[in-house]
Amino acid sequence: MRPLDQPGAGMIRAHDVTIGGLRTHYLEAGDASAAPLLLLHGWPEWSHVWRPVMQRLDQAFHLYAPDFRGFGQSDKTFSAPGADATPERLAHDVLDFMDALGVTRAGIVAHDVGSFVAQVLARQAPQRVRALFFFNCAYPGIGARWVAPDHLMEVWYQFFHQQAWAAELIGSSRTTCRIYLREFLRHWAYRQDTFDAELDTWVDNFMLPGNLQGGFNWYVSNHASRMAVIKGTAAVPPPIDLPTRVFWGRHDPVLKAEWTDRLPAFFSNLELSIAEDAGHFVHYEMPNEAAEEIRKFFGRVPA
Amino acid sequence: MRPLDQPGAGMIRAHDVTIGGLRTHYLEAGDASAAPLLLLHGWPEWSHVWRPVMQRLDQAFHLYAPDFRGFGQSDKTFSAPGADATPERLAHDVLDFMDALGVTRAGIVAHDVGSFVAQVLARQAPQRVRALFFFNCAYPGIGARWVAPDHLMEVWYQFFHQQAWAAELIGSSRTTCRIYLREFLRHWAYRQDTFDAELDTWVDNFMLPGNLQGGFNWYVSNHASRMAVIKGTAAVPPPIDLPTRVFWGRHDPVLKAEWTDRLPAFFSNLELSIAEDAGHFVHYEMPNEAAEEIRKFFGRVPA
Repeated sequence: MRPLDQPGAGMIRAHDVTIGGLRTHYLEAGDASAAPLLLLHGWPEWSHVWRPVMQRLDQAFHLYAPDFRGFGQSDKTFSAPGADATPERLAHDVLDFMDALGVTRAGIVAHDVGSFVAQVLARQAPQRVRALFFFNCAYPGIGARWVAPDHLMEVWYQFFHQQAWAAELIGSSRTTCRIYLREFLRHWAYRQDTFDAELDTWVDNFMLPGNLQGGFNWYVSNHASRMAVIKGTAAVPPPIDLPTRVFWGRHDPVLKAEWTDRLPAFFSNLELSIAEDAGHFVHYEMPNEAAEEIRKFFGRVPA
Repeated sequence: MRPLDQPGAGMIRAHDVTIGGLRTHYLEAGDASAAPLLLLHGWPEWSHVWRPVMQRLDQAFHLYAPDFRGFGQSDKTFSAPGADATPERLAHDVLDFMDALGVTRAGIVAHDVGSFVAQVLARQAPQRVRALFFFNCAYPGIGARWVAPDHLMEVWYQFFHQQAWAAELIGSSRTTCRIYLREFLRHWAYRQDTFDAELDTWVDNFMLPGNLQGGFNWYVSNHASRMAVIKGTAAVPPPIDLPTRVFWGRHDPVLKAEWTDRLPAFFSNLELSIAEDAGHFVHYEMPNEAAEEIRKFFGRVPA
């Protein structure tokens, strides 16, 4: 196997699969005989964000990185703001995707939006999930801290994204799209210039028809359940007992590392450590370490 | 005097006055022998928003509507985000303005941003204030309700406006500026089409160099004191005992009419009523009624 610091030539294949009328685009790497891993992205991301990790793990796993509905090159199911992208719906899409590809059970690697979806999978279809690896993970234990007065400067976008005219504003031109994405990528990364060289790729993606609204629909769709957690009216779910590894970026301003404190109440079989030199995008900011931790974790949990 | 429903030809004069290096633009109407009234605007407004009321009151008062620093045609003192527009600073500007124009004491009519400024004037220079007339008034009694979970969808912009890149985004083109202003004017008015015919005038104004950032600097400047009110760490000021009239729009989604409940704790000489057919912009949405209430109130308080 290649050393992790010498990634391969990027033997990443791109495919589409259509299931029940929904076209899902996904990246694939590694050999079909290897243990399957599903990589679930966040916002403002799509499958592409997993490339650095995939290039480092393609000798160890069979990797799949789908674009959620509304993202990347997957179908846009709503052109206007719509609540078609709840965590439950996206989890159902992932199960359909696994069925279509003949993946009975897979390790899940998830971040941000993907972390919501992975928790639904673990609760509703635990037999399909080998184990869970989370980067910065949105989980119910964050509670009302999402909207503590001193955190409001970090979460205003979650409300703005629900405005019917937000995609029209941000997508008015490449210039406006670039201003918007640039600032999130810079603010949320520990090293502000992490994404600078790829910024045009991000703009290209989010200027594809429907992709800004598609991402914003996540916020529309997830609003009610998020507010229930914030208000404390959501039922507290029993802990997930699947093997769980959390590798959380120290410097994430929106999903704060100190919010790891309540993870043990929601994940009973938990290994936690902090990625000291990363912010929100551990998988992209520290791909060597991220890949190595994924490899080690799935190397020791039961197949 | 003309009936209120037949406004005059709009004998409104526009002037500039420079005080201590700061050029303040203002509108003036009425006769110099009449009782002076100062009209203090909000965001996204400038002196222009008072024209309907001024046209209806120019036989009864000597009216002055200044543009706050950063707004309209007044000087922009910061081109980048800067905290140069605190309520205290704007109140000081108003006192300078009164001095320069030889206005010893005036009635104050205020709204939104102007309501913060008017309260500072009433507390710090009560001898300069004859009485206070507020439309929807931001006052400390609103407290943590500003950021109650169900109100966050209404106040995200107060945090967005503090982003260093917000003016670059919104001012990217007339198109983006129009999308943004249109939605606030429509969402905050009771009749959504209230401002439609004048939307280009609004876009013209906020596309003047520095005007988007100038308005956003209000939010930068007022952030610390607003957060202190929200957190409950601000000292509770003694009630203002000047004669005070509040005429609050029933349907304002951001400054809610139910928040009038604590006005008596902050204004000890209060007359309150609700403008049933208005939202955030009572003075613009119901100019006949707004003008009539101003005329009646200042007709009965001591000169």
